[in-house]
Amino acid sequence: MRVIKLVLEYDGTGFSGWQVQPGRRTVQAELEAALAGLAGEKISATASGRTDAGVHALGQAVSFCTGSKHPPDVFRRGLNALLPEDVTVLSAEEAPEDFHARNSALGKWYRYLIMDRPERTALDRNRVWHVPQELDATAMRAAAACLVGEHDFQSFRSASCEAKTSTRHLRRIDVFRDHRGRLVIEMWGTAFLKQMARIIVGTLFEVGSGRRAAEEMREILEAGDRKKAGVTAPAQGLYLVRVDYDTITEVKGP
Amino acid sequence: MRVIKLVLEYDGTGFSGWQVQPGRRTVQAELEAALAGLAGEKISATASGRTDAGVHALGQAVSFCTGSKHPPDVFRRGLNALLPEDVTVLSAEEAPEDFHARNSALGKWYRYLIMDRPERTALDRNRVWHVPQELDATAMRAAAACLVGEHDFQSFRSASCEAKTSTRHLRRIDVFRDHRGRLVIEMWGTAFLKQMARIIVGTLFEVGSGRRAAEEMREILEAGDRKKAGVTAPAQGLYLVRVDYDTITEVKGP
Repeated sequence: MRVIKLVLEYDGTGFSGWQVQPGRRTVQAELEAALAGLAGEKISATASGRTDAGVHALGQAVSFCTGSKHPPDVFRRGLNALLPEDVTVLSAEEAPEDFHARNSALGKWYRYLIMDRPERTALDRNRVWHVPQELDATAMRAAAACLVGEHDFQSFRSASCEAKTSTRHLRRIDVFRDHRGRLVIEMWGTAFLKQMARIIVGTLFEVGSGRRAAEEMREILEAGDRKKAGVTAPAQGLYLVRVDYDTITEVKGP
Repeated sequence: MRVIKLVLEYDGTGFSGWQVQPGRRTVQAELEAALAGLAGEKISATASGRTDAGVHALGQAVSFCTGSKHPPDVFRRGLNALLPEDVTVLSAEEAPEDFHARNSALGKWYRYLIMDRPERTALDRNRVWHVPQELDATAMRAAAACLVGEHDFQSFRSASCEAKTSTRHLRRIDVFRDHRGRLVIEMWGTAFLKQMARIIVGTLFEVGSGRRAAEEMREILEAGDRKKAGVTAPAQGLYLVRVDYDTITEVKGP
């Protein structure tokens, strides 16, 4: 059997997340249907992680085993011909036999976009979290800095998270404004717990809006209690930007 | 009668452009319906210029006269409550009696986005021009530089353009890549002829894809003949970013 690695871009708006669920439209179901059509066999696809309903991907990594002899580029072009317009295969390549999109991942990069202004956004509907007041990016940056490094992120995971340990290494977190004035939060870590990225953003939002002081971030982290952290930021502002394998290369700055 | 100035953001995808047309969904028609509902009188709205079907706006300027006594902020909030989600009023302010969104405009800033890669884009559908080959941004930048200044842009206007003179002052044009690798073309000028921004981009595309040399741009400009210029780039990559009034302030770089 061969192992193929794909990188996918998708617009999460029309999907109930990555994972197959009966009666729901999911990215995995669409991909597996296209794979079956192309390879003439049932193929089961594994992603680097399950994205929640509404979460977008600029570079989700996926692996699958196949008996098909199609060269990788035939998978890329054939899948793009078969897939709906809200999923795109950016690349397809032959991977080592022991490659596994989830188990082999060494790093993940997430981006979160917030539009913090009174008026809703016509162009970025389903693409950002709209917050009707201006947030204090400097305070958010100070709060975010406490999270960098290896920590127990127990306070920043969903109650339904099933990971055995909650220690994770957050390598980098940046808070800045882009050319359209949107607040961007970039998070790069070895791995993320369930809803960790969204709970971090929701807590930073509470700092940025003045509900909490930046200094509280350390106490929240040390408490090891989900109830101490902030709200879970909505899914539609979150983007899985990239998944790293093999070698960790430094992420370039904003 | 009072004059009110609005700044609008809109997603052009669902509109047949700005201007009212019988049987079509247009931004002007939606806005005028909301204005009538709010002010209790028929109001006719004037934009800085008509955007084509599919063209987006981050900062379209609009003016209208009204007998209503609503403070500007009531217009902003009331219109946002009445307008569909693909149009947003970003600001509303009292304007001088002689203010006219089209006639008073001193400068316009347009942005054009191109995604130049083999794979289509799932996240930027209707937001960029997808070109399936990589473009040479350096050649495009060199070609674009010829256009800066006051010139007769006869080669760069639609055959149906009704402007009396085709001399315009293009103050600045930048070609660069953004953090997602998309090619961005920013154009800032005193005024633009019909489809001028899209024909400039279409001609730069022909340079970037190697169909023409960068040096040809000057000949195209001097020819004064629409047939010498390139294709008209599709509407969905174009954004009206800002309209300047009163004082011209330098546009900040990318």
